[in-house]
Amino acid sequence: MESLKDKVAIVGMGISKFGERWDASSEDMIIEAVYEAYEDAGVEPSDIQAAWVGTLRSGEAGVTIADPLKLKNIPITRVENWCVTGHEALRNAALGIASGLYDVVLAVGFEKLKDTGFPGLGTGRGTNPVYQAGATAPGYFANIATRYFHDHGWDNERGKKILAKISVKNHHNGTMSPKAHFQKEVTIDEVLKAPIISSPLGLLDCCPTTDGAAAAILCRADLASSFRSDPIFIKGIGLSVDPMLPTLRPGFDYVGFDANRNAARQAYEQAGVKNPREEIDVATVHDCFTITEMVIYEDLGFSPAGRGWEDVEAGTFTLEGDLPVNTDGGLKAFGHPVGATGLRTAHEIYKQLQGKAGLRQVNDAQIGLCHTLGGTPQVACVAILGNTKGQ
Amino acid sequence: MESLKDKVAIVGMGISKFGERWDASSEDMIIEAVYEAYEDAGVEPSDIQAAWVGTLRSGEAGVTIADPLKLKNIPITRVENWCVTGHEALRNAALGIASGLYDVVLAVGFEKLKDTGFPGLGTGRGTNPVYQAGATAPGYFANIATRYFHDHGWDNERGKKILAKISVKNHHNGTMSPKAHFQKEVTIDEVLKAPIISSPLGLLDCCPTTDGAAAAILCRADLASSFRSDPIFIKGIGLSVDPMLPTLRPGFDYVGFDANRNAARQAYEQAGVKNPREEIDVATVHDCFTITEMVIYEDLGFSPAGRGWEDVEAGTFTLEGDLPVNTDGGLKAFGHPVGATGLRTAHEIYKQLQGKAGLRQVNDAQIGLCHTLGGTPQVACVAILGNTKGQ
Repeated sequence: MESLKDKVAIVGMGISKFGERWDASSEDMIIEAVYEAYEDAGVEPSDIQAAWVGTLRSGEAGVTIADPLKLKNIPITRVENWCVTGHEALRNAALGIASGLYDVVLAVGFEKLKDTGFPGLGTGRGTNPVYQAGATAPGYFANIATRYFHDHGWDNERGKKILAKISVKNHHNGTMSPKAHFQKEVTIDEVLKAPIISSPLGLLDCCPTTDGAAAAILCRADLASSFRSDPIFIKGIGLSVDPMLPTLRPGFDYVGFDANRNAARQAYEQAGVKNPREEIDVATVHDCFTITEMVIYEDLGFSPAGRGWEDVEAGTFTLEGDLPVNTDGGLKAFGHPVGATGLRTAHEIYKQLQGKAGLRQVNDAQIGLCHTLGGTPQVACVAILGNTKGQ
Repeated sequence: MESLKDKVAIVGMGISKFGERWDASSEDMIIEAVYEAYEDAGVEPSDIQAAWVGTLRSGEAGVTIADPLKLKNIPITRVENWCVTGHEALRNAALGIASGLYDVVLAVGFEKLKDTGFPGLGTGRGTNPVYQAGATAPGYFANIATRYFHDHGWDNERGKKILAKISVKNHHNGTMSPKAHFQKEVTIDEVLKAPIISSPLGLLDCCPTTDGAAAAILCRADLASSFRSDPIFIKGIGLSVDPMLPTLRPGFDYVGFDANRNAARQAYEQAGVKNPREEIDVATVHDCFTITEMVIYEDLGFSPAGRGWEDVEAGTFTLEGDLPVNTDGGLKAFGHPVGATGLRTAHEIYKQLQGKAGLRQVNDAQIGLCHTLGGTPQVACVAILGNTKGQ
């Protein structure tokens, strides 16, 4: 068992405008994202030797995207893995390159949620849905928040004030992302006074329902310099499926997820990361709710267990902090068009590591991490990228 | 761009009973297939480092199969690609091994069609369905038969008699497959007198609607001998998506498919096959309808273009012929539980190349081919397997 480290480079990326895209079809959004990636990499559609497309519920897309993307007679595979779907497109594309069979491939993900009757992500389990009253995603993560507050001896007022800082941070970062769904500041007071969705979580603790697409062009690392002077290298990709819904496991503590921890462990091992807090310079993580981002800090080792809130209070994860998280505004600003999200999180890290993140650029970012979490939560993916070989 | 050739071995396979499995859930069938594969390979669930699961419409299965298969905290990815879905599980698992990241992985595919309201596969195009009156799979392939008959100057009686031989052959082979859905002989007369489904195709020209699952354990080729004395090696896997529905392309000849030809070309190049008729010893192909098997003979180069029927008349593709095709009975006997089919076709080749195909064993099979076709038809996969490295 070898590592992926430095075998695969990303040489182009693109994202569509994220938002309520009533005016655009799935194909329109895919074209926006992929042609931006083609142009960024300096490739033609005929250079692409294989493709992977991620979508959860926007159709059987493998055969659909060939025509709009001008992909002729190559393999195009649809991948799906709940909210980790976009990361699966990236991961399988990377495995395709590392296999030696393909030199240049495309990963693309998209989702159309606004005009397809999307009812929200439930807590079903694939072929055996376990639907329960209140078992929606907000209801599930509200339980996590309630438990987190309880463990720290906080009342809702105290707990919500801390979570609100995550919302304020991500909304602020989103104002510097021209393609984000939301590009407006919110205040602590606005977050605290927002309508309750599932107590203690209010509207501004939750990510919106959004359409979008994102894409990456990957190639063999040894070919990367022929495409651009600043390729980004894949250092490791971990993915873990928890065999049980955490809530079905006796002793589940409701303040963290094995899927996160195991995906991170795999990725850190591949990348040779021993101390993520020190070694990761910038990260994008799955802030479907503010409390989710909080427990992710702890699951990924950015903060000690139970102490993510101290780092929130200290501003560690702001743009000016030691470890900026969700520098583009995260799911809070970009929403969660499911198949797109993993590639959108990778897009931000790609831009940060190239020093091309505009107003939201962090200083001297060399190693970045992107993360998604899905299945309430039963599956997580962590990818680590770097801007130099051999880091 | 290297080849997959001899990088990846298959060291265990299993299939469930195929049929009307009203008594069994998807999990039941997956367990039948995968535990047979575990036993065949001599592995424990804890030996599996990553998995790929293929299903078209039986749910978001990546997180669902972990528990019944005892897969703990590893990556499990759902893949989908119309009727090629089962082959995608095999292909992506093979890429995972060839990448170097994993040493031992699982590919599994399944579909539950009988009790899920399955309406038949239409001719929709993913996110942009093009449904038309009569545009069902039988209606589509009936057009292919009509054109094939016309090109050869045959009336329906003459044409149907030739196609009937394919049905009789596959039903005969199915009698020797204990896990096939149908295990009964049919006569030419029965095929000709069967109710018309879409003229000229009758009931016995069509594959049935079936539940089933199939699985494979793959490992690095250099580790294969530690699992078994008769591993099977992957020589090449081609997959091609046609960017257009063939029927939308001006000049489409209705007697063959670019997806088949391009997938075969990719696989032959990887495997170093120059003359498939001579070099392939046994094959399983996508006989969703008798006419489909006929045009596949020609698309894959088993027969010259327009002359597959002469080889049917000569018995070339029977168990005793020069190039036995669908030795296990094909889709005609096993039905087409979509996610399972590609792996079921691979299972037959695996058994034939090991000399373990029982009553249906062909003589001295060393190189075999399995094929699936999907998307009316816009996508095809061809995998070539061999029982010796370096062939």
